[in-house]
Formats: sequence, structure tokens, C-alpha cells
Amino acid sequence: MMKLYYAVNTCALASHIALEEAGAIYEAVRIRFETDEQRKPDFLTVNPKGRVPVLVTDRGALTETPAILAFIAQSFPDAQLAPLGDAFQFARVQAFNSYLCSTVHVAHAHRMRGYRWADDPAAIAAMQRKAPQSVAECFDLIERGMPDGPWVMGDRYTICDPYLFTLAQWLEADGVDLARLPKVRAHRQRMAERPAVRKAIVAESA
Amino acid sequence: MMKLYYAVNTCALASHIALEEAGAIYEAVRIRFETDEQRKPDFLTVNPKGRVPVLVTDRGALTETPAILAFIAQSFPDAQLAPLGDAFQFARVQAFNSYLCSTVHVAHAHRMRGYRWADDPAAIAAMQRKAPQSVAECFDLIERGMPDGPWVMGDRYTICDPYLFTLAQWLEADGVDLARLPKVRAHRQRMAERPAVRKAIVAESA
Repeated sequence: MMKLYYAVNTCALASHIALEEAGAIYEAVRIRFETDEQRKPDFLTVNPKGRVPVLVTDRGALTETPAILAFIAQSFPDAQLAPLGDAFQFARVQAFNSYLCSTVHVAHAHRMRGYRWADDPAAIAAMQRKAPQSVAECFDLIERGMPDGPWVMGDRYTICDPYLFTLAQWLEADGVDLARLPKVRAHRQRMAERPAVRKAIVAESA
Repeated sequence: MMKLYYAVNTCALASHIALEEAGAIYEAVRIRFETDEQRKPDFLTVNPKGRVPVLVTDRGALTETPAILAFIAQSFPDAQLAPLGDAFQFARVQAFNSYLCSTVHVAHAHRMRGYRWADDPAAIAAMQRKAPQSVAECFDLIERGMPDGPWVMGDRYTICDPYLFTLAQWLEADGVDLARLPKVRAHRQRMAERPAVRKAIVAESA
């Protein structure tokens, strides 16, 4: 059985939701960042990067949200979570998710994990101050590119949706004014009503 | 005909090499960062993010290196640039490339583009100081995970190879001691000898 290693309030929620959408049989294993469990030897054996999510399959461990999401979509084709038969449309999905991981999530991370990129406490504070602006700029770009919906790619629900939903959870804490993001906000609400989303959130809150 | 928008000394080189490896017919279009061409209206019409690479296809524009690389692999299956028939192995390829874009490239970017994440010049200087350490830590992890070769995924050359090669071009300027990275260094040398790599580098230097 597959195992998803997650921590609460992290991007692992996206993979968690996708597993639910796919109807996968899996076990969710909580890693406690509050006790630095992700840096302990037991977990570093699972993922030397010391991060979540990790999806352990019978063939080995997979990391990185865009890769895990695409793997879930390809492994459960009946769930139709990505346009698998169309290289261009699949690339659009991957491009959206790649932007989320390499730019949006990174902008957000400067609010809480600035120590990754500077040692000076004043520099870390300066990063925190700019996070509301840089996260807002990322979401402005997403907002402008969003179709009328209901989903990120238009009519079809894809692996972009749980990932956007997950990062959009952090907007208020990042200090972004949601009034400027009506489509993102409506998408978040629409997502919150899906049974798979509710189930993953309840499981992580337990 | 496809068009690849690139700038010199950027991660666009990875897509450029992959197009050469695939035997694709394409036009390479240079964007001059030295005159801020990426922020001018003409280019923002092509890519509202103001970044390279962009691969314009007859169905529209694609951005984000991991997505473009996978698109090239899927569009030119005869070139065998990715394990397309195996969702797990494909996910390993995507996970490697996702790590390069979201963690390795980001660590590097703090040396030259700290203004993305802080306004204070002292904070930007603090980021520059830490870049050698954070880039080195990323490459240490890659080094430990590298097979004996010849390629990132072992026996088979994949879209991971041009991407790693591209980011490894920056190691000296990032202040990383290459003595600690024998496998990465050998990989870089091996890559530099491939005709497709030479051709892309020559084209970008012209």
C-alpha cells in the first residue's frame, strides 16, 4: 500500500487531496514539524531532503509535489486528473504546477523560512516584510490567467486544482488582500466543497 | 515552426539542448536581459511572467523548464529523452527536475536576484553571502544521490541531464568548491562533449 508522508499546513495537502480524488488506497503518515521530526534520522532515510510530501510506492519513494501529482494522475487514469493523452495540454498543467512550486511557494516561504537563504536576522525580517507583496504579485498573475472556471484549466478538473487550493490556503497569513483575487477566492470556495478535499483536510486535522 | 525564447547564461539552455537532442526543427530567439527586454511589452505578450524559457508551439506558448522538457520528450518519443511508458520512472525524472527548479535554481537566484524577495540592500547582500552555502548543500544532495553514471538516471540519458548540466554551469560563480562534487563534475564534462550540447552553446554564444 502506498504511504503519503505529510505535515499539517504544508503543500503535502495537494497530494493528499489528489490521492482522495483518485480513489487511491493509501496510508497517510503525519510528520511533526513542531518536534523537527523531518530532520531526524528515521525520516531522512525516507527523504534525505527532510521535506514533505513523500509518496512511498512499492517501487520506491517519490518527492516533489508536481511529480507526485502527475504520478497520481498517470497511475489512476480513470480519475481523469490530467490530460494524459495530449502532450501540449499536459505541459500546460505541468507548467502551472511548476510555477506554483518554484515561484509561488518560494515567495511564500520567505515569510517563515528565510533562514534557508540568509543568516542575518535583519535580512530574514526584510524577507518577511516583502512576502505579502511578492506572494500577491504571483497570485495577481494567476488571477489574470484564470479562465472563468470552474477549474484552473477550464472545464476539466485537474491536478492543478488541489495544488492551487493548497497554496491559496496561506493567502491571509501571507498578508494578501483577497479582494484583488475574485477568481482565486471563488476557486478556493468551490474546492472546499468537494468531498475529497474535505476528507483530506479532516484527516490532517485529526 | 516552434520558437524557443532564451537569454544567455539562463536555465533556457536546458530546453535548448533538449530541442537539439530531439532533432527538433525550431527557431531560437534571443531575449537580451542586458537591455531588460524581458520586461518590455513585446515580450510580456509572449510570457506575462517576463522570464525565459518560453517555447512557442503551434498550439500556444509553454513556460517553466520542467514542463517544456517533458513536452519535448513526449513530442519526440523516438529521441527517448524520458521513460514515457513508466509512470514511476517518469515521476523520478520529474522529481529531479522539480528539485532543480524549485530548490537548486532558487538557491542560486539569491546571489543575483535577491531583490525578488527583499528590498533592503543589506538583506540582499546577506542573501548573496549565503548562496555559496545553500547552493553547495543542494549539490551535495545531488552528488550523494547520483548513480555511477553515466547519466543522472543511470544508463539512460534523459531530460534531467541537460537541466543538471545547465545549473552546474554556475557552480564556480556561485562560489561552490567543485572538489566536493566529483560525480557532478564528471557529468558536466561528459555533457560538454555531446554534439547537441555544443551546438546549443555555440548558438547562444553567437
